[in-house]
Amino acid sequence: MSTVPGRSQAISHRSPEGEGAPVSNAPQVHISEVGPRDGLQSVQGVMSTADKCRWIDALAAAGLREIEVGSFVPAKLLPQMADVVDVVRHALTLPGLCVMVLVPNRRGAQAALAAGVHKLTLPVSASEAHSLANVRKTREQMVEELRSVVALRNAEAPGVPVEVGLSTAFGCTLQGAVDEDDVIRLALACADAGVDEVGLSDTTGMAHPAQVRRLFTRLRAELGDHAGAAHLHNTRGLGLANCLAAFDVGVRSFDSSLGGLGGCPYAPGASGNVVTEDLVFMFEAMGVSTGVDLQKLIAAREPLKAGLPGEPVYGMTPEAGLPKGWRT
Amino acid sequence: MSTVPGRSQAISHRSPEGEGAPVSNAPQVHISEVGPRDGLQSVQGVMSTADKCRWIDALAAAGLREIEVGSFVPAKLLPQMADVVDVVRHALTLPGLCVMVLVPNRRGAQAALAAGVHKLTLPVSASEAHSLANVRKTREQMVEELRSVVALRNAEAPGVPVEVGLSTAFGCTLQGAVDEDDVIRLALACADAGVDEVGLSDTTGMAHPAQVRRLFTRLRAELGDHAGAAHLHNTRGLGLANCLAAFDVGVRSFDSSLGGLGGCPYAPGASGNVVTEDLVFMFEAMGVSTGVDLQKLIAAREPLKAGLPGEPVYGMTPEAGLPKGWRT
Repeated sequence: MSTVPGRSQAISHRSPEGEGAPVSNAPQVHISEVGPRDGLQSVQGVMSTADKCRWIDALAAAGLREIEVGSFVPAKLLPQMADVVDVVRHALTLPGLCVMVLVPNRRGAQAALAAGVHKLTLPVSASEAHSLANVRKTREQMVEELRSVVALRNAEAPGVPVEVGLSTAFGCTLQGAVDEDDVIRLALACADAGVDEVGLSDTTGMAHPAQVRRLFTRLRAELGDHAGAAHLHNTRGLGLANCLAAFDVGVRSFDSSLGGLGGCPYAPGASGNVVTEDLVFMFEAMGVSTGVDLQKLIAAREPLKAGLPGEPVYGMTPEAGLPKGWRT
Repeated sequence: MSTVPGRSQAISHRSPEGEGAPVSNAPQVHISEVGPRDGLQSVQGVMSTADKCRWIDALAAAGLREIEVGSFVPAKLLPQMADVVDVVRHALTLPGLCVMVLVPNRRGAQAALAAGVHKLTLPVSASEAHSLANVRKTREQMVEELRSVVALRNAEAPGVPVEVGLSTAFGCTLQGAVDEDDVIRLALACADAGVDEVGLSDTTGMAHPAQVRRLFTRLRAELGDHAGAAHLHNTRGLGLANCLAAFDVGVRSFDSSLGGLGGCPYAPGASGNVVTEDLVFMFEAMGVSTGVDLQKLIAAREPLKAGLPGEPVYGMTPEAGLPKGWRT
């Protein structure tokens, strides 16, 4: 994993706030921007390839070191992602950027590795009902798929980390509650399948801080360095509180989306993903470095708006502006 | 203070989540609804007396046990509050409700006590610049005013608690940073002046979780049972994260506003106060009882919207709806 720019830096710096001197200038938390994938595949409109590239340029210029730039899925299912190979090709020209993509299966992984991506992420549902609805596979079948992807990676691109996000880890709109023991068992099964990191996703916006603390504490205890990112949603306004809860128990990798783009289709009108601008503001205000320049990050909303006219763009910090005297 | 319905219940139950068995059925956190005062005095429109009363009825019916129903200030300064005596009279008919009002000075306190309110709250600015701009008094002059209000209370209505909210405790848009030692010194001065509780207010939406934890930890260490509520804003999206941070260090009283009404005039377009609906959702999801029925609380948005047509009403939980299987 250390061959990849981005997350490796954050992993090398796990000490909690204030505990000892920083070992380097690496950011204290790692923000993985998921807007160009998670966001763009959730909206009705299709952003042009040129607009996507301009947006990714602006995100990288703001200091984001890992961007999920698209997904390798059949274009007939997700026409918004039909140009993923071109977008990846452009993103690979940006220095220091970890270019990540989502792949649902081995076939997608093969195409992604051929395109030269730095990192793969796969969704595995903690809820059986969501798994069948989302990828038409049981959870066990998805773990088998993971083994196959890991074997492919080992053979063809051993330096490319494979990450899993456990969808519906905090609850499922189809199934209702999701058993926490089930979540941890599945996380262990993914780690056993050879993936590098297993994170937890609040796909449906049902997580609350006590649950976030419990589950990430268990995940980190069971998986150690293979415990991955917190992917939390703001569906009911708890996004940042849940990120804080995860930070409190040692999580240092967070997924978020510029303008809160994308997220949960079950919550129309409500923003889905945690807003990157607000997340960066929270950490930077707390004195926890993100490596992101907040003013440039806010400027990165312009190419997003230009490329998706009429799409609602969320975020309280950009609307209120930075506080007087905010460091530049 | 124990003669007053509302906050006294929460004070009797300070044990943190999970620590021992609950001593009673009292809510584990106390939510003080400030919308009818803080909210209505911040908007352009004027809600009619009948609409205010309908809204307060709905808030009380949802289980809120303390409502700041208005402020006793000259009607020429705040025409929205001209009918405060009538609103108080109505609110006093609601069983079990602690009827609180804001008063800026002794004169206001006199009128409020004559109207029969259960509790007084006074704003004292932690920033000298804000103090002069807001009440045209230095901080020391405000502490003198407090002494006078407490003397009046002792003479005329000894059962009526006097609460102070320290405005701009986390930063000031006029002055910039506010020294934390200054905040604690001022809190102690207020307690010495005889007020029952001193809370901290993030008037300008500049607070972050690390600061909230530091300041409330110090406040509680210095003031003990006289440490009061967290009045936090959502200006930059950190409202609930800051409430969680306060809860983590033992705060059990929170101010919030239905629909996030009101708040910070320095952040146009951004909602100000923490949204009561989202705050209640967070605590109830965590298993921390608020005494509030979330469905009835969401229903209380209707009289607010009817009484203030065209005014933006915030809140993610009402927009997304309650999760499947949410207990009724």
